[in-house]
Amino acid sequence: MRPSSRLSDELRSVRITRQYTRHAEGSVLIEFGDTKVLCTASVEENVPPFLKGKGQGWVTAEYGMLPRSTNTRMRREAAQGKQSGRTQEIQRLIGRSLRAVVDMAALGERQIVIDCDVIQADGGTRTASITGAFVALTDAVNGLIAAGKLSKSPIREHVAAISVGVYKGVAVLDLDYPEDSDCETDMNVVMTGSGKFVEVQGTAEGEAFSRAEMNTLLDLAEKGIKDLITLQKAALAG
Amino acid sequence: MRPSSRLSDELRSVRITRQYTRHAEGSVLIEFGDTKVLCTASVEENVPPFLKGKGQGWVTAEYGMLPRSTNTRMRREAAQGKQSGRTQEIQRLIGRSLRAVVDMAALGERQIVIDCDVIQADGGTRTASITGAFVALTDAVNGLIAAGKLSKSPIREHVAAISVGVYKGVAVLDLDYPEDSDCETDMNVVMTGSGKFVEVQGTAEGEAFSRAEMNTLLDLAEKGIKDLITLQKAALAG
Amino acid sequence: MRPSSRLSDELRSVRITRQYTRHAEGSVLIEFGDTKVLCTASVEENVPPFLKGKGQGWVTAEYGMLPRSTNTRMRREAAQGKQSGRTQEIQRLIGRSLRAVVDMAALGERQIVIDCDVIQADGGTRTASITGAFVALTDAVNGLIAAGKLSKSPIREHVAAISVGVYKGVAVLDLDYPEDSDCETDMNVVMTGSGKFVEVQGTAEGEAFSRAEMNTLLDLAEKGIKDLITLQKAALAG
Amino acid sequence: MRPSSRLSDELRSVRITRQYTRHAEGSVLIEFGDTKVLCTASVEENVPPFLKGKGQGWVTAEYGMLPRSTNTRMRREAAQGKQSGRTQEIQRLIGRSLRAVVDMAALGERQIVIDCDVIQADGGTRTASITGAFVALTDAVNGLIAAGKLSKSPIREHVAAISVGVYKGVAVLDLDYPEDSDCETDMNVVMTGSGKFVEVQGTAEGEAFSRAEMNTLLDLAEKGIKDLITLQKAALAG
Amino acid sequence: MRPSSRLSDELRSVRITRQYTRHAEGSVLIEFGDTKVLCTASVEENVPPFLKGKGQGWVTAEYGMLPRSTNTRMRREAAQGKQSGRTQEIQRLIGRSLRAVVDMAALGERQIVIDCDVIQADGGTRTASITGAFVALTDAVNGLIAAGKLSKSPIREHVAAISVGVYKGVAVLDLDYPEDSDCETDMNVVMTGSGKFVEVQGTAEGEAFSRAEMNTLLDLAEKGIKDLITLQKAALAG
Amino acid sequence: MRPSSRLSDELRSVRITRQYTRHAEGSVLIEFGDTKVLCTASVEENVPPFLKGKGQGWVTAEYGMLPRSTNTRMRREAAQGKQSGRTQEIQRLIGRSLRAVVDMAALGERQIVIDCDVIQADGGTRTASITGAFVALTDAVNGLIAAGKLSKSPIREHVAAISVGVYKGVAVLDLDYPEDSDCETDMNVVMTGSGKFVEVQGTAEGEAFSRAEMNTLLDLAEKGIKDLITLQKAALAG
Repeated sequence: MRPSSRLSDELRSVRITRQYTRHAEGSVLIEFGDTKVLCTASVEENVPPFLKGKGQGWVTAEYGMLPRSTNTRMRREAAQGKQSGRTQEIQRLIGRSLRAVVDMAALGERQIVIDCDVIQADGGTRTASITGAFVALTDAVNGLIAAGKLSKSPIREHVAAISVGVYKGVAVLDLDYPEDSDCETDMNVVMTGSGKFVEVQGTAEGEAFSRAEMNTLLDLAEKGIKDLITLQKAALAG
Repeated sequence: MRPSSRLSDELRSVRITRQYTRHAEGSVLIEFGDTKVLCTASVEENVPPFLKGKGQGWVTAEYGMLPRSTNTRMRREAAQGKQSGRTQEIQRLIGRSLRAVVDMAALGERQIVIDCDVIQADGGTRTASITGAFVALTDAVNGLIAAGKLSKSPIREHVAAISVGVYKGVAVLDLDYPEDSDCETDMNVVMTGSGKFVEVQGTAEGEAFSRAEMNTLLDLAEKGIKDLITLQKAALAG
Repeated sequence: MRPSSRLSDELRSVRITRQYTRHAEGSVLIEFGDTKVLCTASVEENVPPFLKGKGQGWVTAEYGMLPRSTNTRMRREAAQGKQSGRTQEIQRLIGRSLRAVVDMAALGERQIVIDCDVIQADGGTRTASITGAFVALTDAVNGLIAAGKLSKSPIREHVAAISVGVYKGVAVLDLDYPEDSDCETDMNVVMTGSGKFVEVQGTAEGEAFSRAEMNTLLDLAEKGIKDLITLQKAALAG
Repeated sequence: MRPSSRLSDELRSVRITRQYTRHAEGSVLIEFGDTKVLCTASVEENVPPFLKGKGQGWVTAEYGMLPRSTNTRMRREAAQGKQSGRTQEIQRLIGRSLRAVVDMAALGERQIVIDCDVIQADGGTRTASITGAFVALTDAVNGLIAAGKLSKSPIREHVAAISVGVYKGVAVLDLDYPEDSDCETDMNVVMTGSGKFVEVQGTAEGEAFSRAEMNTLLDLAEKGIKDLITLQKAALAG
Repeated sequence: MRPSSRLSDELRSVRITRQYTRHAEGSVLIEFGDTKVLCTASVEENVPPFLKGKGQGWVTAEYGMLPRSTNTRMRREAAQGKQSGRTQEIQRLIGRSLRAVVDMAALGERQIVIDCDVIQADGGTRTASITGAFVALTDAVNGLIAAGKLSKSPIREHVAAISVGVYKGVAVLDLDYPEDSDCETDMNVVMTGSGKFVEVQGTAEGEAFSRAEMNTLLDLAEKGIKDLITLQKAALAG
Repeated sequence: MRPSSRLSDELRSVRITRQYTRHAEGSVLIEFGDTKVLCTASVEENVPPFLKGKGQGWVTAEYGMLPRSTNTRMRREAAQGKQSGRTQEIQRLIGRSLRAVVDMAALGERQIVIDCDVIQADGGTRTASITGAFVALTDAVNGLIAAGKLSKSPIREHVAAISVGVYKGVAVLDLDYPEDSDCETDMNVVMTGSGKFVEVQGTAEGEAFSRAEMNTLLDLAEKGIKDLITLQKAALAG
């Protein structure tokens, strides 16, 4: 029995709100149950130094948690003077996941910077970030097309992410915080609209996991990501 | 004529939403028009080192802006490795303003940490922060009373803040971003429910200002803060 | 009765020594009683990046305290690896105050950097810094004129600063450290030679202050700044 | 055809040299072909603050690359003043991998700090680090047993790591640098002696990968790790 | 011919002003010609962590230059967020030099922190710092004796420092900035009242130097330090 | 009697291994007994900003210790976020020592970066670094000649370094760690092939030292450096 009474293959209630704030070229509030992440996409008409003059664009991401997005207050990273290893790990993952579905040459010499800021955390902030960031990125790209700066979209297909894990011996989809902090295995899966993997990151929290368990988890993830991509499409059509 | 067509002594539409997020002891989204700040109050059962064993509490504040809360993306302070001078100035101001209305001995040896994070900026983020933070602080204190940890409130009276300035030669209340970036004089005023000043910070952006102009600005501020305190009371009663 | 036996509207003994050190284009030791600040002005024939090619100059300031300028030794900011919020607040104030009286276009594409370093502290270091920095700035500008790099001064008028406060219920001028650490209200006022305000920063340390108290304090400040500007003029004529 | 002419399921030549340096409680030079990593284990008779008094131990890891371990010189992280995101990601992975096979209560209130420093890099530094660190950790634990500080080993089973990837359309084991910088998919797998997974981190560098490809890669990894654990056992028996 | 027309074995005019500022337990302005350094000694009734409970004291030093103490403005180390290698090298040298003449057990469990801040630089700031710091340290120690906290001085003998170098082929004493920036060999020598060496740091700036040149330089340094110690004694007697 | 039973003028066993790693243009492992330092030389076809366009090259050095190169684990400087004063002092010394024997104009507008990383420490890491770095630098320069980028070597002569000290009252050559941590005087001497001094850094650890002691130490150093240069030549001929 899951703490939330969800079925083992049931996502939390997912909400995707576009144009959540008004300055960014893409601005999406994504909610996976009580996890709420604001994902903005900012278009900058320049590229990082290592790409200057190479005729291609870049997509990068930064991640942060508001100090009291969590159950007990976390220290503010800006006040501490550095980003934690966890933060850097997550923002690198978000960036790689999005770049996997973008044709950088087609984007042209410009950069899209994604900011994922966690307003409220209840597990799964990195998967919500990737899933919401894709929608914000799409809005920003569509804005470039509407402004005549791009003739067609450099986005090749959808990408979304979900967590799966073994909780009290059962494989479950989309772990919330109570599950996440008490699970044996935790896996984050990033997949494309065509059903291929972009990232698979599985970690044995307590006991190591078998190949059979891994297969069950991947099946669950595949199901969840299909659902999420359907929700992304609905939001973008809305 | 103001860009927003407001009267010279007219506040923007102000909304105060309590319990905006679920983990913090006080959590308030305050909106001054398009300026939106999330103010949380976190109760910690300890005090900073310089107050250990002195039988009194502390209230402190931190401030931040989401990178794309602004018109063009600002660099993330956590990634840069330090808070700007402006950020530190604002968070010190918020902290002092709140401490001015709290009886530290009555609070007991605990600390309340206020986080003001700007979700969307359109001028006046510091005054919105102070005004919203007071409500979050009150909710946190009321929680301590409800939990039997305090027998009565250490908050002596209300406190709120507003900006006033001279825009195109006219004294106006509650400057939005277009006014703020083009005004001659900018003044932030923090006042209590009993009509006294906690902070007055006036700055000549272009031309220096006269004593007469200052008096006009203070009159406007007094009017605006009375309105804000009425709104705080309504929100707390809601 | 003030600890120093001064009258309520009496400045401390003020001394302004020009050409205090020999390398800087302007070098002034200013003493407000036991507070001693070395203010230097350095002319640099370039401007910060945000002003490149805009045909105007810049004036900026940095502030520091020698570790043992104070009663108990403060930690050296260079060794700690960052400037405190207080330091940044003060150096931003000094910079704004000076820029308010300089015509940046007339200065041309060059920068004047002001350094205010506190040799000995006894209250009022920021007001002494502004008052002394103006003299150092003037010397640097006069050097540019003498060298034929400027045909006339871009300085429009004098600027000086003083603190006022309510100490044991009485409004007093130019607080020294014993008064500053025990006062109810503390206000720093920056005014021009023509009697207008550049900055007003009033803070209720204990109790909030009334409009009437504020008016009394501003009267005192006005009187003090007139005296300081007379002293600046005498020093510059000397 | 692989650049090194290896078969697709062939490890590079692996050498494990124990007691490589003389101060550390465990000191192992591990070589995966031209990749050379020095792994040391340091026993400290204390635990990090969050574990004080909980009756259990800790294993943690730090990772670094000598500036010229790579083809072109990398900037020294100590001189830059921070560890890169990649460095933090790798050292967190090493730590988690080792902790997965250690019984922290049986270790007692002490900490073993693993340092993995890359002397020469040719791809696979993180998998070599984990594989070598396990041997260094074992030597350190055996030293504690020999000294009578532990009665039996808190290490439950072996752990080792290998990379697998899709290079020019073919699944290959243990990628060297030419393969790593030109592969479509890159996966790092950490497994135990009993054939279970501790970590699986798969990343699509170019194209996303299918479930079938993933299965092929996991088969290869399983084979490679069995070989590595045989080599660890031989080294420890030596 | 030296730029200053001094004889090759002639010190610049040296002035030692005690009680230069009022807060520190020892406060000395030392001038070697146009080089002016403020040396303060602060007594702290605690010791660094590595000496806790060992029944002995400590003497340490910090060094800094005001940004415009030099010919062209240097960047402020506090603003840059770190002390340069040169600064650290000098402050370590000052600390070691003073500790060489203090009996740490006799000092008791307290620390004396020396701050050497360069007000104006014209070469030889480190040697002036050591020479002046000794006088400030002595004043602080005498204060402890006067207050009954020490019964006799833990200072065993005098210590002073001077630079010597080869300038245009001639060995000269006490290099000023024009000589220092154009010399072939530069040596800083720290000696005690009994004529022994505490530190000798010789550096070939251009050409390497011979044993014979070294001997000539050491003779000069010995002469200069005797003169400085005479001046220290006169100042302390004053 | 020395702990190692060496004669007072006897070096430890010195081994110089060239081409120790494969990426760097020069790569030398130097061993002074149990002290082992990896010295690499990296050629970069650019110069630091202050030399741009001046038609000359540069040689610079960085130094580091692996955390467990020492008897008890040192904190990793990259993790602490800064290099210690000692590290900076040593790397500055290595750079100056090498630059003293290189004709910068003859090197052309390129930079050679030396990295000295201590694999195992037993005293004398800075002198081993300089002695080994010279060999790595020579290899890098010879590579430039072989590649036709230089027509002749800009290296004017050999340079090497050794420590000498007074241990239990006796002047000894090449101190190992037990001697170094218990000696009265410690001197590091850097000399050229022609027998001239580049650097002499003598420090009284306990008691100050006399001119006579200094002379004895310099004699010893001269003897040791001659031996080291013979070993450098043999290694380069090998």
